Amino acid sequence: MKLATYKDGSRDGQLLVVSRDLASAHYATGIADTLQQVLEDWNFLSPQLQDLSDALNQGRARHAFPFEAARCMAPLPRAYQWADGSSFISHVELMRRARGAEVPVTFEADPLMYQGRSDDFLGPCDDVRLPSEDLGIDFEAELAVVTADVAVGCTPEQALDGIRLVMLANDVSLRNVTPGEVATAFSPVAVTPDELGAAWQRGRLHLTLQSTWNGRKVGMCDAGPDMTFHFGQLIAHLCKTRNVRAGVIIGSGAVSNPGVEHKGKTDWPKGYSCIAEKRAIETIQDGQPKTGYMKFGDTIRIEIKDKDGCQVFGAIEQTIATSVVVKSRKSSLVSESP
Amino acid sequence: MKLATYKDGSRDGQLLVVSRDLASAHYATGIADTLQQVLEDWNFLSPQLQDLSDALNQGRARHAFPFEAARCMAPLPRAYQWADGSSFISHVELMRRARGAEVPVTFEADPLMYQGRSDDFLGPCDDVRLPSEDLGIDFEAELAVVTADVAVGCTPEQALDGIRLVMLANDVSLRNVTPGEVATAFSPVAVTPDELGAAWQRGRLHLTLQSTWNGRKVGMCDAGPDMTFHFGQLIAHLCKTRNVRAGVIIGSGAVSNPGVEHKGKTDWPKGYSCIAEKRAIETIQDGQPKTGYMKFGDTIRIEIKDKDGCQVFGAIEQTIATSVVVKSRKSSLVSESP
Repeated sequence: MKLATYKDGSRDGQLLVVSRDLASAHYATGIADTLQQVLEDWNFLSPQLQDLSDALNQGRARHAFPFEAARCMAPLPRAYQWADGSSFISHVELMRRARGAEVPVTFEADPLMYQGRSDDFLGPCDDVRLPSEDLGIDFEAELAVVTADVAVGCTPEQALDGIRLVMLANDVSLRNVTPGEVATAFSPVAVTPDELGAAWQRGRLHLTLQSTWNGRKVGMCDAGPDMTFHFGQLIAHLCKTRNVRAGVIIGSGAVSNPGVEHKGKTDWPKGYSCIAEKRAIETIQDGQPKTGYMKFGDTIRIEIKDKDGCQVFGAIEQTIATSVVVKSRKSSLVSESP
Repeated sequence: MKLATYKDGSRDGQLLVVSRDLASAHYATGIADTLQQVLEDWNFLSPQLQDLSDALNQGRARHAFPFEAARCMAPLPRAYQWADGSSFISHVELMRRARGAEVPVTFEADPLMYQGRSDDFLGPCDDVRLPSEDLGIDFEAELAVVTADVAVGCTPEQALDGIRLVMLANDVSLRNVTPGEVATAFSPVAVTPDELGAAWQRGRLHLTLQSTWNGRKVGMCDAGPDMTFHFGQLIAHLCKTRNVRAGVIIGSGAVSNPGVEHKGKTDWPKGYSCIAEKRAIETIQDGQPKTGYMKFGDTIRIEIKDKDGCQVFGAIEQTIATSVVVKSRKSSLVSESP
């Protein structure tokens, strides 16, 4: 089934079931209000949502309405943990090679993961508001999963059973700032692994992640075979020393495919899922980067289509905008309202 | 007022109001079930809790009962963000000096902050369960605050108004692992800044943080004057590029006082708030560390007493224990129950 969350003025929004073709939706009212609630009581609530999903897909849901991605929050608008991996080792290699550094051997054995801010995610069509263009604004097209409760010490294989939902993510990074990550948006819809059919294989999604920057398709990256650490491995890595709790979001890091050797030259025909990678390629090929980072007004679209050309998660479609900080009244800066 | 959360089998526990002397408590039932609820609707709910607190302190609360720290979860058992700073620059200096490195000048202007895992905090008396003693197990005694909604672009001064509660924290770190942080415990009680009286001065707490390792007092560190960045500055740093939402926890990093020069030799008479710092001191003084990290069975106690010698937050009292990972049944590793 496919789940989404509509904006309703609250911090956690209103849960929806969305039809397979993303054309129609139905509020989950009467089953659960929020996705976090469902994740905390999955075995009881998800069969009820599945029934609603079946009815919706068969055109039997009586209060269905047209689905609008623009009204969506992130499927999980805030989370108790957002841990982003660097599970495509070719991305790490490329970035390091551009600055003449080696990839530490430990990277092959253990995924690099970092904690991101998870108190306030962006919806799929929300502007990315930033104070300045000089920060090195970059998109980062990724996959992400939402977990069940997974116990300390689990194996990667066991951790696969702890994957409840799959989504797309845009992890907006500021390359000229440390730490770089600033805001994360997710696709309109989160999808259960069973809904992905044969494209989902043991923690990897074998489909093409498309990134379109200012209307130009810059990335058509295979999300499956080159994922060095699958999502079960990423979760198991977090579980080495402690439990992971229901509703934790795990990211894949930038989806990346290795370069292809041709007549002694390396090329990257599938493009890129973040600008930093394009700049690394330019540095390797020409000695310096020539592609600049994003400017105010730039747009980024991130999506995955299935083998029939249909949207799986809906598209992330965001515009970079200036954040006008109002510094008028003290009280406007600390407030109760979401 | 003083607030705590009792274990009740749920993920978020049951909210309590605790008397000033920590002797008695009263459920907040009828006002709010969880602390997160209160933080999201502070202006409406906190006056009701304050009334209950007043009644409790005057011995007028009819259903009061003796308060037991051992029954506590962390005041906020899970949070949407846990950002830990390195706001005591003398700690950073010491660690770097021991390995012959300089402190980057940027550290004086901008606090170093990292995101910690916040889906599953430890209660003040919960064992710290770890798979091996070889990980470099260290305690880290800190202060922490819980925020209101604070808007992007706020000043440090404005951010001070966004501090709802103050707590103690033990950020257990594994020094031989990257990243090092593994589990965080908080004091039994979270306290509103007004309750701290004159000891709370513009985002700094002017009291002594005591750390007792295996019954031996190893740290009596001043938490106030040497805090390079006060909590308003730490929050404002996070707010540079985005909002901070209600219920975010911000840590001070290890409380640390600079060394004292005496007859050409540096000494640290106030002791230490983490073992890594003691080892750095030994390295500077004798060329190598001689104090080992924590072993299974070791205990750590972290507390702050007011000028009358009374506990302010209650003590964090934890034991390091082995985590026996049961790998028997697959189903035991992915489960619904908290």
